[in-house]
Amino acid sequence: MPVSVYEPPALEPGTLRVIPIGGLGEIGRNMTMFEIDGKILIVDCGVLFPEEHQPGVDLILPDFSPIKDRLGDIVGVVLTHGHEDHIGAVPYLLRLRNDIPLIGSGLTLALVEAKLKEHRIKPYSLTVTEGQTEKLGPFDLEFVAVNHSIPDALAVAISTSAGTVLATGDFKMDQLPLDGRLTDLRAFARLGEKGIDLFMVDSTNADVPGFTPLESSIGPVLDQVIQKATRRVVVASFSSHVHRVQQVLDAAAANGRRVAFLGRSMVRNMGIAADLGYLKVPKDVLIDYKKAKDLPDDRIVYMSTGSQGEPMAVLSRMANLDHAIEPGPGDTVILASSLIPGNENAVYRVIDGLTKLGANVVHKGNAKVHVSGHAAAGELLYCYNILKPKNVLPVHGEYRHLVANAKLAMQTGIPEENTILGEDGTVVDLKDGVAKVVGQLDLGFVYVDGSTVGEITDADLKDRRILGEEGFISIIVVVEAATGKVVVGPEIHARGFAEDDAVFNEVKPKIVSALAEAAKSGTRDPHALTQVVRRTVGRWVNTSYRRRPMIVPLVIEA
Amino acid sequence: MPVSVYEPPALEPGTLRVIPIGGLGEIGRNMTMFEIDGKILIVDCGVLFPEEHQPGVDLILPDFSPIKDRLGDIVGVVLTHGHEDHIGAVPYLLRLRNDIPLIGSGLTLALVEAKLKEHRIKPYSLTVTEGQTEKLGPFDLEFVAVNHSIPDALAVAISTSAGTVLATGDFKMDQLPLDGRLTDLRAFARLGEKGIDLFMVDSTNADVPGFTPLESSIGPVLDQVIQKATRRVVVASFSSHVHRVQQVLDAAAANGRRVAFLGRSMVRNMGIAADLGYLKVPKDVLIDYKKAKDLPDDRIVYMSTGSQGEPMAVLSRMANLDHAIEPGPGDTVILASSLIPGNENAVYRVIDGLTKLGANVVHKGNAKVHVSGHAAAGELLYCYNILKPKNVLPVHGEYRHLVANAKLAMQTGIPEENTILGEDGTVVDLKDGVAKVVGQLDLGFVYVDGSTVGEITDADLKDRRILGEEGFISIIVVVEAATGKVVVGPEIHARGFAEDDAVFNEVKPKIVSALAEAAKSGTRDPHALTQVVRRTVGRWVNTSYRRRPMIVPLVIEA
Repeated sequence: MPVSVYEPPALEPGTLRVIPIGGLGEIGRNMTMFEIDGKILIVDCGVLFPEEHQPGVDLILPDFSPIKDRLGDIVGVVLTHGHEDHIGAVPYLLRLRNDIPLIGSGLTLALVEAKLKEHRIKPYSLTVTEGQTEKLGPFDLEFVAVNHSIPDALAVAISTSAGTVLATGDFKMDQLPLDGRLTDLRAFARLGEKGIDLFMVDSTNADVPGFTPLESSIGPVLDQVIQKATRRVVVASFSSHVHRVQQVLDAAAANGRRVAFLGRSMVRNMGIAADLGYLKVPKDVLIDYKKAKDLPDDRIVYMSTGSQGEPMAVLSRMANLDHAIEPGPGDTVILASSLIPGNENAVYRVIDGLTKLGANVVHKGNAKVHVSGHAAAGELLYCYNILKPKNVLPVHGEYRHLVANAKLAMQTGIPEENTILGEDGTVVDLKDGVAKVVGQLDLGFVYVDGSTVGEITDADLKDRRILGEEGFISIIVVVEAATGKVVVGPEIHARGFAEDDAVFNEVKPKIVSALAEAAKSGTRDPHALTQVVRRTVGRWVNTSYRRRPMIVPLVIEA
Repeated sequence: MPVSVYEPPALEPGTLRVIPIGGLGEIGRNMTMFEIDGKILIVDCGVLFPEEHQPGVDLILPDFSPIKDRLGDIVGVVLTHGHEDHIGAVPYLLRLRNDIPLIGSGLTLALVEAKLKEHRIKPYSLTVTEGQTEKLGPFDLEFVAVNHSIPDALAVAISTSAGTVLATGDFKMDQLPLDGRLTDLRAFARLGEKGIDLFMVDSTNADVPGFTPLESSIGPVLDQVIQKATRRVVVASFSSHVHRVQQVLDAAAANGRRVAFLGRSMVRNMGIAADLGYLKVPKDVLIDYKKAKDLPDDRIVYMSTGSQGEPMAVLSRMANLDHAIEPGPGDTVILASSLIPGNENAVYRVIDGLTKLGANVVHKGNAKVHVSGHAAAGELLYCYNILKPKNVLPVHGEYRHLVANAKLAMQTGIPEENTILGEDGTVVDLKDGVAKVVGQLDLGFVYVDGSTVGEITDADLKDRRILGEEGFISIIVVVEAATGKVVVGPEIHARGFAEDDAVFNEVKPKIVSALAEAAKSGTRDPHALTQVVRRTVGRWVNTSYRRRPMIVPLVIEA
């Protein structure tokens, strides 16, 4: 359903305008802009990963159009945590203005700086910690600890003369977190008592009843699987999931095994996490991958990337025997990870490949080796009841998640008119405790493909879908300009249509006679002749094959 | 991992040869051939639906090569039930020899005959029922009732001079089935006591612990949802799931609503099921879709297709407001169906679309509106213990399912050497209670695309994948034969690469000069000149864009 777009009114002084630029109606490319009195604050700047109807696209960025003429007014970018869907678009924003200050926790900034280094950008950054307050222009910020599937995540309370917003970022409320760092419900309570005018809250698991299980419940399962394993163990998970990796290290150590990291991002991120003290490496457990091969099979755990079946990642390559480590009978592979929708076939292909090689594959489907990083419905109810916000804007979710979250808010007594169901580009104005939708911007998808940003359009993707489903037939004819007589061709080539170009011998005379007829009736315009060729081939292929390849005719005058 | 292919020995008289042609290592295109003393029996002949790496393909058939020169020896095709993955390839088999007898239950044959009618084939068929025995050449058949997600499913016991095979087809063991027709464990017990030499058993849910819940547990949930609904209700499910539809009819009737069927296959199949008495239509409940629109919103249930997010089916079209029924606030949509791996994104897009229109969407993720049609691990253990087969060949599953099923067999005491892990084309010989793998045929995928069967190859699909990811650039140059001088072009066109062909102005002079240089060094061969163009453009696009579109150069001599 197309969004009905309408311009918001000019922003009055003393009113806070909130525009979610990405992350509403999708899980990814989270980004929100806050504007008051001529100054802009941004919270998060992430990427979205493409789906199957966006073929060949590497990444999708938020549409920066609301800020691209206002770059000088940006006072800073708050990054709530270090996941790609919250930090991945920072390099593309900083390409527009490289001195926008970045504000975030130690781990978050370390991860974003490593990413910026690859883009050869050195950012201006400010490390903050939970409980800390900062003033950025008209915005008074307070950072609040939250827990998530990466350490050091922060919610941010944004106070302005128009009111206070609390943005959770991604979070859950694990009551026995591995690092002891709880989602700070005391701070939520205090902020709630002072008054939260707008609560922007993670919706990912709003449609999951109950509570997200403890991260620490996974450790004993990993321990048991590793204990029973007789040969090599490979564990695959997300390369930023420090606590999951921590539990693998601990389980390995408890079973007298050493751990080697595999995969570029795993090696890099765990290096950062260990250096900063987020990952506590047990003594003498880590071993370089190259030396690991000399250990006996029952003394090693490989901690790798590729848990989503990504074809170029370590785990897929192992399953295809395209990696130095070739799994075999007696080996154990644990996918300690979620199964992100859309990745199922790829992941099951990897599981089947490993199973066929003889490995015992343990995954979410047959063991409790994963818990989510997001608050489920039960946890969200706690939040609403502790905060009692005046208005709610569910964020970070596909539309059904946002709706589920809004329903939870209403169940705790927040009036329906104060729960805002928005989309990317929804303009919300806040003043005196009243939040109102005042506009809807027309924001698009910005595709990164190779080194190009925003050059691939939806029309290109439509062409790719047709080409990918049906292939193409190209027909080249050279005609004499004066007479329209065919002097070369038709040359016909096809790809993705049929193995043998000989199938086209049947249609060539039809093309020649259609062109002759057109010439006889006085048609000389190459474009019109092109249409004649297109129609002739299109009809033939549809009748003979019931298929609809892209037809690419070209009539050249010689 | 490539299968190592080896020829089986010539088949000795008195030995039964079993070759699963499809359905091992995949969920779909189930087909097995049984051969003894020169005669062939086939059990099932289904299609497989393509995955995302097989773009544009409509259907995938079993590879008929083991039987295509032996068509005259086929004594019949037993069809265990009426699902597409068991009957869908029958028309393609009968195109090769149209008088091969088909044997199946009443509903199964009615469904296959309706399908064959579309292909203008009238088959020779024999309706059988549970308990019935038939002799087909050297094969003595006994049919055994099993329950599944379609009525009238049959297992078949195949007795020959070499031993007895029991093939379950798809089944589960619902102990309170809607139609009272149990999987006949008494028959299993009797057959087991006589001796089953080879048990070919459904593996789909072998990795699911416990027991598949009762189909009848869904009725009360449907009833409750419909009772609470204030406006229209749409239920989507599989168009062959008679018992699911039965429960929708009953729940609608109990709530004073009428039911209209939507979607060609739903209308057709439920017509057949009602005519044959499998669907018991409560009095005055059914109403024609065109008349349903005149009923008040709270008096109607639409029973539709499209539960897998298929873009052309009713439910997707409703979500896109591309159907006469436009869902809106207060409407309820129930997806009473599974979520087949690979379809997640499509299904969630439909759910989000309907949610955005204001509908309340009830699905497997938030209510108990679906149960599987396949036996889970707990049920399979019962089977093994009741049958005590000498040898087991898990079928109907991806590789991990076959492995899980084999493990269950071993847990009940069947020796590892008697559990056979096969793939499509594995040749198993059976004699005197001994089953042995004696060969592995090289079987491929046969793609149906439009009206073509087997003409699209894996090379074409690879081209489609490249085209679909990256698009193509075609370059046409006409050169003077004698001098190699460029007389027309380069004409460059691209699709799926960039919106504006002006980007190619940069590379045109490079092509002209590369060709001039080649001409200077004496290169005249158009193929060699084509390679010059390909290299020039390939290098340019890779350096400038870091992309790898298909490059389609053509040098024409004029």
